[in-house]
Amino acid sequence: MATCGLIEYEDATAEVRAVYDDIRAVRQTESINNFWKALAHDAALLRRTWESVKAVMGRGELDPLVKEMLYVAVSVTNQCGYCIASHTAAARKAGMTDAMFGELMAVVGMANETNRLASGYQVEVDERFRT
Amino acid sequence: MATCGLIEYEDATAEVRAVYDDIRAVRQTESINNFWKALAHDAALLRRTWESVKAVMGRGELDPLVKEMLYVAVSVTNQCGYCIASHTAAARKAGMTDAMFGELMAVVGMANETNRLASGYQVEVDERFRT
Amino acid sequence: MATCGLIEYEDATAEVRAVYDDIRAVRQTESINNFWKALAHDAALLRRTWESVKAVMGRGELDPLVKEMLYVAVSVTNQCGYCIASHTAAARKAGMTDAMFGELMAVVGMANETNRLASGYQVEVDERFRT
Amino acid sequence: MATCGLIEYEDATAEVRAVYDDIRAVRQTESINNFWKALAHDAALLRRTWESVKAVMGRGELDPLVKEMLYVAVSVTNQCGYCIASHTAAARKAGMTDAMFGELMAVVGMANETNRLASGYQVEVDERFRT
Amino acid sequence: MATCGLIEYEDATAEVRAVYDDIRAVRQTESINNFWKALAHDAALLRRTWESVKAVMGRGELDPLVKEMLYVAVSVTNQCGYCIASHTAAARKAGMTDAMFGELMAVVGMANETNRLASGYQVEVDERFRT
Amino acid sequence: MATCGLIEYEDATAEVRAVYDDIRAVRQTESINNFWKALAHDAALLRRTWESVKAVMGRGELDPLVKEMLYVAVSVTNQCGYCIASHTAAARKAGMTDAMFGELMAVVGMANETNRLASGYQVEVDERFRT
Repeated sequence: MATCGLIEYEDATAEVRAVYDDIRAVRQTESINNFWKALAHDAALLRRTWESVKAVMGRGELDPLVKEMLYVAVSVTNQCGYCIASHTAAARKAGMTDAMFGELMAVVGMANETNRLASGYQVEVDERFRT
Repeated sequence: MATCGLIEYEDATAEVRAVYDDIRAVRQTESINNFWKALAHDAALLRRTWESVKAVMGRGELDPLVKEMLYVAVSVTNQCGYCIASHTAAARKAGMTDAMFGELMAVVGMANETNRLASGYQVEVDERFRT
Repeated sequence: MATCGLIEYEDATAEVRAVYDDIRAVRQTESINNFWKALAHDAALLRRTWESVKAVMGRGELDPLVKEMLYVAVSVTNQCGYCIASHTAAARKAGMTDAMFGELMAVVGMANETNRLASGYQVEVDERFRT
Repeated sequence: MATCGLIEYEDATAEVRAVYDDIRAVRQTESINNFWKALAHDAALLRRTWESVKAVMGRGELDPLVKEMLYVAVSVTNQCGYCIASHTAAARKAGMTDAMFGELMAVVGMANETNRLASGYQVEVDERFRT
Repeated sequence: MATCGLIEYEDATAEVRAVYDDIRAVRQTESINNFWKALAHDAALLRRTWESVKAVMGRGELDPLVKEMLYVAVSVTNQCGYCIASHTAAARKAGMTDAMFGELMAVVGMANETNRLASGYQVEVDERFRT
Repeated sequence: MATCGLIEYEDATAEVRAVYDDIRAVRQTESINNFWKALAHDAALLRRTWESVKAVMGRGELDPLVKEMLYVAVSVTNQCGYCIASHTAAARKAGMTDAMFGELMAVVGMANETNRLASGYQVEVDERFRT
């Protein structure tokens, strides 16, 4: 069914193939994640999403590993199974060790806990934190 | 009202003061965040939460700035106003520049977007990501 | 186990059967979704939920297709697998094309992204938007 | 502006007044929460929501205090400021002490933490928990 | 403070002004929302976000009013105060009546309720909904 | 793969075994949940999380059954499959009947619905609820 069938390279339009080719070039791998093969049902969405991911996740002030760990932190907070699996794998490929993963999970868990304590206790923002 | 009144040092019990003293020593600042002053209504919760935050946020495999940015990523995803304000301030104190903050927000926004695209398209986890 | 066993028509009480009959009449289909068969463990919850869904999802100022797409938008934002699958199917049955689904996902993804950018940048509500 | 103006009793239609009267009778108080005064812009939504709240929050297998604490737990997890304020007040009115509130917050914080640890570590459901 | 100070047109760089000019032209209004003035701290993020919003929210298979209501549905589900205020205003500007808003809220509320009932009852996806 | 492999007692370090032994003693059962076997990849995280759960979930002002139901309420709101399955089982073991579960689900669903109605209608907190 179109909602989540996966579009393989050989079945893709020229526009979709162009994006797949760029993903392979940038990621330096032959494999295309299912995520992209699903978005391919909407070529404009596929292109816009890929262009944004490429621009956002590349090297900048933050190194790629930190960006992948931030991606995992958000995906875990949102309980997105697909993204947790794919970005944890990407973070490991980028150099995340077991020890780093353990600390990442500890921070994510703690933040999710204290976010609720702050809300539940209806804590006012400290004057010096007001912007 | 007890739910969110703030307990100042001079009004605190010896047990709460001991935690405040440790926070000041570890954070190397006189000021105690409203968050702790609110939790102080439950000394056990205050102590346990502080001990965990101290253990989790200290230097380890990940440096403190990365941990603070992870904290901001979770707080922004959860839309927790208090935590966004306090941890963004903490991250800046730890060295986060405007450029780093911009990249952090870009990754958090992108991850929140693609988390939903992956769920909405009901994308199956790629075989190679299965653990 | 009672938590999520499904109650089939032939095993249902008269009260539950009455709701199943109404669902079949209103939905003009013989099949009853697993969702209703699970709620049937609590006849009062089943009846109240069905009566509300029937009242809310029927034709009104907004047409049924728009309502189903709104349902998908919420379910995707909440990452609810069951609801994404069932309401995407319902939206398609109500006339949602692949192109419409692609635009729906694009809006949902974008909104989830900008929600976090607005929170992360701690943007004040514009005076003219204050109610 | 209609989106969130509050409709007072004297300005309300007969249908809305009937709901307000019932709220006052059931809650045994003259005051009507802003929540109801806002929903009053849609009399059908006001009535349906009130009828459901009345049915769900009344005495049953669970006592009203437990139900109010469950309401607070959900509202805190969703970071809903209005609901946290109103239901925390309702829970206190129903008998929640400071000590009970402290334990409630501790459980809510802990659950929000471990929910993410379970997702982040991609933990498989134990065979004996499968239903 | 840089985190959320607002950058006015007269203080903006040429790159930021170009985006502001385009927003004014497309939105056919002189005013620039605070959201854009905050993102302006990161010109690349501002441009990319605006280009995406422009591409996603324009006329397509779904009309602009439906898209704005979908935006409100997501923002309400995420409890994003800024986005609720700005997109509810945008939806009204696009023609949303009080009656349509009431139905929108009813669907959003119902979906958030049934999403949890489906998860809480651990309902299996119906075979015919599997894709 | 380390991310979610499970560490069995016989493969565990002395530090991890000590936690497993304590879990067995406190829970009075031989079985260790997969959750703990996954956290065991990070002995410090395992110990800190277990010590907190033990302190928070024990008997206090609130009885264990109420605490388990609060845990289920949070887990359902967060759509965490693992936690819903494990804590629903724990709540049943603690005495939750089908009728109690039905009421729990009804409150959780209702709270998730009204949280959004309050946010969507941008309802101001009543003066008397302000703390």
